Amino acid sequence: MAKYTVAVAGATGYAGGEALRILAAHPAFEVTCVAGHSSVGDRLGRHMPHIPQLADLVVEDTTPEVLNGHDVIILALPHGASGALAAQLDPDAVVIDLGADHRLEERSAWDAYYGGDFYEHWAYGMPELIIGRDAEGGYVRQRGVLPGSRRIAGPGCNVTAVTLALQPAVAEGLVETTDIVADLVVGYSGAGKNLKRANLLAAEAFGSAVPYSVGGTHRHIPEILQNLAHAAGLTAADADRFTLGFTPILAPMSRGILASVSARLTDRGAAMSDADIHAIWERAYAGQEFMVVLPEGVLPATQNIIGSNAAHLQVVVDRKANRLLAFAAIDNLNRGTAGQAVQSLNIALGLPEDQGLTKIGVAP
Amino acid sequence: MAKYTVAVAGATGYAGGEALRILAAHPAFEVTCVAGHSSVGDRLGRHMPHIPQLADLVVEDTTPEVLNGHDVIILALPHGASGALAAQLDPDAVVIDLGADHRLEERSAWDAYYGGDFYEHWAYGMPELIIGRDAEGGYVRQRGVLPGSRRIAGPGCNVTAVTLALQPAVAEGLVETTDIVADLVVGYSGAGKNLKRANLLAAEAFGSAVPYSVGGTHRHIPEILQNLAHAAGLTAADADRFTLGFTPILAPMSRGILASVSARLTDRGAAMSDADIHAIWERAYAGQEFMVVLPEGVLPATQNIIGSNAAHLQVVVDRKANRLLAFAAIDNLNRGTAGQAVQSLNIALGLPEDQGLTKIGVAP
Amino acid sequence: MAKYTVAVAGATGYAGGEALRILAAHPAFEVTCVAGHSSVGDRLGRHMPHIPQLADLVVEDTTPEVLNGHDVIILALPHGASGALAAQLDPDAVVIDLGADHRLEERSAWDAYYGGDFYEHWAYGMPELIIGRDAEGGYVRQRGVLPGSRRIAGPGCNVTAVTLALQPAVAEGLVETTDIVADLVVGYSGAGKNLKRANLLAAEAFGSAVPYSVGGTHRHIPEILQNLAHAAGLTAADADRFTLGFTPILAPMSRGILASVSARLTDRGAAMSDADIHAIWERAYAGQEFMVVLPEGVLPATQNIIGSNAAHLQVVVDRKANRLLAFAAIDNLNRGTAGQAVQSLNIALGLPEDQGLTKIGVAP
Amino acid sequence: MAKYTVAVAGATGYAGGEALRILAAHPAFEVTCVAGHSSVGDRLGRHMPHIPQLADLVVEDTTPEVLNGHDVIILALPHGASGALAAQLDPDAVVIDLGADHRLEERSAWDAYYGGDFYEHWAYGMPELIIGRDAEGGYVRQRGVLPGSRRIAGPGCNVTAVTLALQPAVAEGLVETTDIVADLVVGYSGAGKNLKRANLLAAEAFGSAVPYSVGGTHRHIPEILQNLAHAAGLTAADADRFTLGFTPILAPMSRGILASVSARLTDRGAAMSDADIHAIWERAYAGQEFMVVLPEGVLPATQNIIGSNAAHLQVVVDRKANRLLAFAAIDNLNRGTAGQAVQSLNIALGLPEDQGLTKIGVAP
Repeated sequence: MAKYTVAVAGATGYAGGEALRILAAHPAFEVTCVAGHSSVGDRLGRHMPHIPQLADLVVEDTTPEVLNGHDVIILALPHGASGALAAQLDPDAVVIDLGADHRLEERSAWDAYYGGDFYEHWAYGMPELIIGRDAEGGYVRQRGVLPGSRRIAGPGCNVTAVTLALQPAVAEGLVETTDIVADLVVGYSGAGKNLKRANLLAAEAFGSAVPYSVGGTHRHIPEILQNLAHAAGLTAADADRFTLGFTPILAPMSRGILASVSARLTDRGAAMSDADIHAIWERAYAGQEFMVVLPEGVLPATQNIIGSNAAHLQVVVDRKANRLLAFAAIDNLNRGTAGQAVQSLNIALGLPEDQGLTKIGVAP
Repeated sequence: MAKYTVAVAGATGYAGGEALRILAAHPAFEVTCVAGHSSVGDRLGRHMPHIPQLADLVVEDTTPEVLNGHDVIILALPHGASGALAAQLDPDAVVIDLGADHRLEERSAWDAYYGGDFYEHWAYGMPELIIGRDAEGGYVRQRGVLPGSRRIAGPGCNVTAVTLALQPAVAEGLVETTDIVADLVVGYSGAGKNLKRANLLAAEAFGSAVPYSVGGTHRHIPEILQNLAHAAGLTAADADRFTLGFTPILAPMSRGILASVSARLTDRGAAMSDADIHAIWERAYAGQEFMVVLPEGVLPATQNIIGSNAAHLQVVVDRKANRLLAFAAIDNLNRGTAGQAVQSLNIALGLPEDQGLTKIGVAP
Repeated sequence: MAKYTVAVAGATGYAGGEALRILAAHPAFEVTCVAGHSSVGDRLGRHMPHIPQLADLVVEDTTPEVLNGHDVIILALPHGASGALAAQLDPDAVVIDLGADHRLEERSAWDAYYGGDFYEHWAYGMPELIIGRDAEGGYVRQRGVLPGSRRIAGPGCNVTAVTLALQPAVAEGLVETTDIVADLVVGYSGAGKNLKRANLLAAEAFGSAVPYSVGGTHRHIPEILQNLAHAAGLTAADADRFTLGFTPILAPMSRGILASVSARLTDRGAAMSDADIHAIWERAYAGQEFMVVLPEGVLPATQNIIGSNAAHLQVVVDRKANRLLAFAAIDNLNRGTAGQAVQSLNIALGLPEDQGLTKIGVAP
Repeated sequence: MAKYTVAVAGATGYAGGEALRILAAHPAFEVTCVAGHSSVGDRLGRHMPHIPQLADLVVEDTTPEVLNGHDVIILALPHGASGALAAQLDPDAVVIDLGADHRLEERSAWDAYYGGDFYEHWAYGMPELIIGRDAEGGYVRQRGVLPGSRRIAGPGCNVTAVTLALQPAVAEGLVETTDIVADLVVGYSGAGKNLKRANLLAAEAFGSAVPYSVGGTHRHIPEILQNLAHAAGLTAADADRFTLGFTPILAPMSRGILASVSARLTDRGAAMSDADIHAIWERAYAGQEFMVVLPEGVLPATQNIIGSNAAHLQVVVDRKANRLLAFAAIDNLNRGTAGQAVQSLNIALGLPEDQGLTKIGVAP
């Protein structure tokens, strides 16, 4: 079978690199174009020595002319950079934007956290997201929206972790939605290949934990609220019924997000046993290939999901504080970005959903 | 001047080792006895090669006979191991217990989190703790209780981080006390020199973040509640007016705690400007040698306090979530354990409070 | 096609775990038995949470009865533990020993470094090892010995790194063989899941580099000498013509070996240009799927091979010191142990050599 | 007593920062001026938050006018940047150059490794360096050159590690000098606060080991050869009697150098017992406050010297390879740079040699 050709813009960044890492071993795709900016003309091997089979590709300029003509186009560009470009891309190509420009459904949310031009929202690339109920009360998921889609918005990595951790609680009404608190321990690859900030230098990162973008300013917040609204059976316009304290903390690791999310129990939640609440998690993720609900009492560690598209999930009840605690461990670049994107792409193109992906982490 | 002689029990553990590290360079003390268990008879240098000047001390058995006869006795023993021993120690010696046995004032709190024999509480060794108001409305602090004390209970390290982070908010009524959430990113030395758990092995720790003791079970919780009650001008018996969700997360670093603590703003708190709230922090820690309230907008990083007795503190207001966020970065072994103990010891003996201690971190 | 069934002994250790990690996603194998010691009766998921699809396997006892009856048996046991067991295994099973018991051809080498019972040597599982020349002067490799083999000895991880780094120089007579020096920076997973040594605890490993087994005592040395003898066209009995200074240094990472190997240039070597010497490396590894000779001037980094069966290789000439420097970066668990074993297994069974393996590293 | 005033140029870099870290707690000095380039006008606290007591200093421009007028001037500038500036500094000030410009005695060595203007060599700031023998055969050391000196050249960090490791062997004729091999595992702070190289980003450093400046090109080599020549009782002009293979390898840690140095034994060396050779190390460093020769069989770990001016040293004999192995662990910023500079400054000014310095490392 002929492979789908793929162009990757932002190929020398960490998100683009992870897309290449996955696609280089995917049986249905062939990377035929890599595009960048300051790296134009370089062999890709200079920037991505960990992917030997693509080393001889040459980085091209990031223009519609270069990107068009490939079956699939992956945009791994800074927030705000893909909206205008996307308008010039071949309408028949399958385009996945790993940036933020096409994630939000509500202009007001965009204006409050990003500003600048607002672009239409695309099919949201989180297959396991709960977006409603079917006639029998089963969950309807975002997966069903993706087949045949030609424009897909890849979710943010912190967003993915918080959403996967908490959505069963929201879908089942176990927690109050107005006082959710999420602290995330995140690796440095999430900060990007950014040479402007001394605090991203290795010497300053080893042995240090430091928060950033705190106090309600992080631009991932509206996307989380939109997801939680959907999980609750509401629309994006209802996202303001949710309130989220969101604090990411950089820790000395390259990849990985450990999300610790908690919220006050509703009366319904408080009335349930620990086992019943754990069973809700198991049902919420039953049949979801990459979702691993850990046995009761086992807490997720990011090492177990490094390099994989899996999410390790756990729920714990703090009876003294009357709060439900939900944990998720994901690889920010794989499950949080490029792995989830390839999963969505597989679905969009009718390929096996797990093709070219792994749920096995590189541990120890 | 003759130096005070010091015996350290638990000398080959991490907390005991940090006490030795500080005392070896302290002008007023001389370490004259180190005691252990499985290491009895070993040169100390085998276990603590980073302290060359104490290398030739020989580890003795942990008995009252060995420990008595020194001016100061430091107990760095597992929780539950110092209570009975302490009863046999010379009443004139200054004894500091780095374990939990003499921290809690209320037997009910002990029973709920520890169980077993309950021991009397000792003078609590956190000099900066707010414990009331004077006639002019200024803070009364724990420091005043320590001079002349012969029995001191050293606080827990996570406790220290959370208390120092949040106490100004509690003292000033800025936050609701019933829904406090604390997530702490902590280094592995906090888990002790424990060879029973494979997940403390280096190979499993690199690149991984993993929570532990979650869901209201952590034994540091009642101590935090007791402290917050005091900061609010209440007694330990009122600690149940406070509710705390507490989640420690191991991250790949040896030392350091980054505490991210948040609570819903009271009306009084919500009415204040960010600058006014920051000014409350500055006033709460003015004149406290080791407390560093960072300038507005600067967030604490644990690297900046490694090896020091300093705490780096910051407060941020999340207006969208209506929560106050308080951050503290401390070295768990130094400020969180042995540094704070030596500071308390200095006060108890009438020495300069900062003698033998540093507020400078080893960065980068 | 029916899959080959596989039993893994030592399944809860790091080497066994890596074998499981690879086999769980290999299309030709099915893990049907996992065996251990202290973990007998446990769900495998308790020990290997990063491999969700094998989580429900139950650890069995390590006996011939348990291991026999599977098509393939992988022994990931301590040195000295597999020799006697192997004698009781089904002669028709394909057995791979990841330990040392069947690597050495000469009893004298075994006695000098190991002692105890000496076991016959098995087919050595390093496909790329140069073992002679064909009629046209091309390299004969160990790969050719493996097809149909029923007993395979997996090489040591440090051995693999040093051998792959230096063998082109030895095969071509570029260096003196009597004064080879190898320093290796190695990750902690190479030290195993060993709870007896405090210096393997995470708290003592972060931020520290420390050598071990220095001074000619390391038990990997005779195996390297044997390999170099073969690469030079000699027999194992000639290994004493080679002299190796060998110093492994633990560094704060979980996986990875960076071997820095050097030797004095022969006149032949000294007469060659840098480009000609680099070309020898390229020719030595041409067509070897997992061997990546980096472009001149690019040095290998272990991050680029984590989780993969690749070796990244480079050669540099120091004209001032008249030494050739050869570098190799490998993943000690994958290329250094289990990946190389599966590669050998693929060859032994007539499967595609790279099936189920990757040459892509998990970077950044 | 009035304190000496100190100006530090390059104050916001890692070497300058370490000088500030030490001087801020030194009883004989007061930092009265900090100078930089792109940071001019900033509060120092913005760049060095780990030194709270200096936070309110403002960074000034790096000019002779700014630097003159202080008793001591510390130049922590890039190689080549201090030579011209130094000529304009007050001749009565004590100037210490932490860069390379005044280290080499021979212009030919400078031209071969640096090029550009050659500046006169200053008193070399390595007090423990052996530079000859006295009438009784005891070592004469560099310490004796420093009292009263007004111009001091601080040694390089890798140089310090290799020199301290190997000089006893050279002084006693235990090793051949023409085939010395040194591999060094080094932390990222040694690479400086350099935002031009993506491979210094934290995300690319975690979990990775990577060599750099290999093949005889590293500019620290001639300085090592000069030192070894002195230790052998020769002059700098004899440095070409020594040959050094020198390979630094970055490992994932912030501070620390672990030097693994080896050389072939001379007949004299080979005839000695291990104990006799160890005794040579003990005698070579007897009475040297910061030199810690470890007991036989104990190998140095960098964690044990972090934040200190100590060097941990060991010697091992490999009888099979007929090589002597010498190990040193130092903190590159402290003992390797700023600590050693303050030690030299103490000597130059007649202060106690160890004043303001520590030999205790921050471990674990």
